[in-house]
Amino acid sequence: MNYPNGKKYNPTASIKTPVKKINYSNRGMTLEEDINATNQYYLECGKAVIHKKPTPVQIVQVDYPKRSAAVIKEAYFKQASTTDYNGVYRGKYIDFEAKETKSLQSFPLSNFHEHQIKHMHLVAEQKGICFVLIRFSSTDEIFLLQAEQLFIFWDRMKNGGRKSITKKELLACSHTIILGFQPRIDYIKVIDRLYHFD
Amino acid sequence: MNYPNGKKYNPTASIKTPVKKINYSNRGMTLEEDINATNQYYLECGKAVIHKKPTPVQIVQVDYPKRSAAVIKEAYFKQASTTDYNGVYRGKYIDFEAKETKSLQSFPLSNFHEHQIKHMHLVAEQKGICFVLIRFSSTDEIFLLQAEQLFIFWDRMKNGGRKSITKKELLACSHTIILGFQPRIDYIKVIDRLYHFD
Repeated sequence: MNYPNGKKYNPTASIKTPVKKINYSNRGMTLEEDINATNQYYLECGKAVIHKKPTPVQIVQVDYPKRSAAVIKEAYFKQASTTDYNGVYRGKYIDFEAKETKSLQSFPLSNFHEHQIKHMHLVAEQKGICFVLIRFSSTDEIFLLQAEQLFIFWDRMKNGGRKSITKKELLACSHTIILGFQPRIDYIKVIDRLYHFD
Repeated sequence: MNYPNGKKYNPTASIKTPVKKINYSNRGMTLEEDINATNQYYLECGKAVIHKKPTPVQIVQVDYPKRSAAVIKEAYFKQASTTDYNGVYRGKYIDFEAKETKSLQSFPLSNFHEHQIKHMHLVAEQKGICFVLIRFSSTDEIFLLQAEQLFIFWDRMKNGGRKSITKKELLACSHTIILGFQPRIDYIKVIDRLYHFD
């Protein structure tokens, strides 16, 4: 028995072919680099327009040398009043923060600042799509936790409860994202499912 | 004839009352300051969450003195890849740029960079609400021009046409915003009308 192209049918060929296992492990990429690459991919394929906001800097002194670019000679890092990433997907406002932890079993809430939680509350009230991406760097596990869920854990802490979210809780309340190649962290896929865009 | 409160009816009273004309003129405020104050007002009254993005800076050298804050010792201004303002209003993505001109009769398109126009195209394709706020500083006239209209003028220039938008054209194609007190530049009011949110 031959294929239409004349090649002989070999039922075991596909088994014999050495399957090169693609290694999606992260090779030292930071969460920020992976998200930037993801956003770049979304931008290029027209899927969404989402950018990281520049680091806020308080500029104190600038030199304007002749015939060359202005040089900032003294500046300080300012605390951001919002989350790091925002943009648009299908007309909808997208807003998120990304946090990485070296912890093995839980995500410490000290990773967030009060003002970031406040900002997320304001965005949620305006019906924006708001979430956090959490990566456990030791195991490369990535979770998308919706702001509304985060608020519950945050309030628990404020009321004297535990200061972290256990991995077990994340597995129950958030959405696992499998690290991919292109895009690396396909969070829009989760958004599609959660908000019925698909 | 008396009012229910016992006061005598006086048909000319309202005419006699000296009407104190409120001066909304800008007393040297920049467009950016006015927009920031407007966004702050929107934020505080829960109307919308819109922020100016930090100025993008390429940081080259940072000093970490003991017991005090990190000092940026060398940095350069980077060209922004997006517009200056974005945020959320009723779930919708809002994105705009603000430009001021000292010209009297027309707005020079050289105020925009190619990449800003490209960004606005991408936002418009994602069905974001995208526009520019243009102020003629000499007369304090403010116009909201939707991105789709701006593209027409931009393309006209690209095809060899005039390099500016005349005030006459702005009066015909854009939306005049009267400078107010609180909020100063009530652009959401125009958005309400244009997108039938009211």
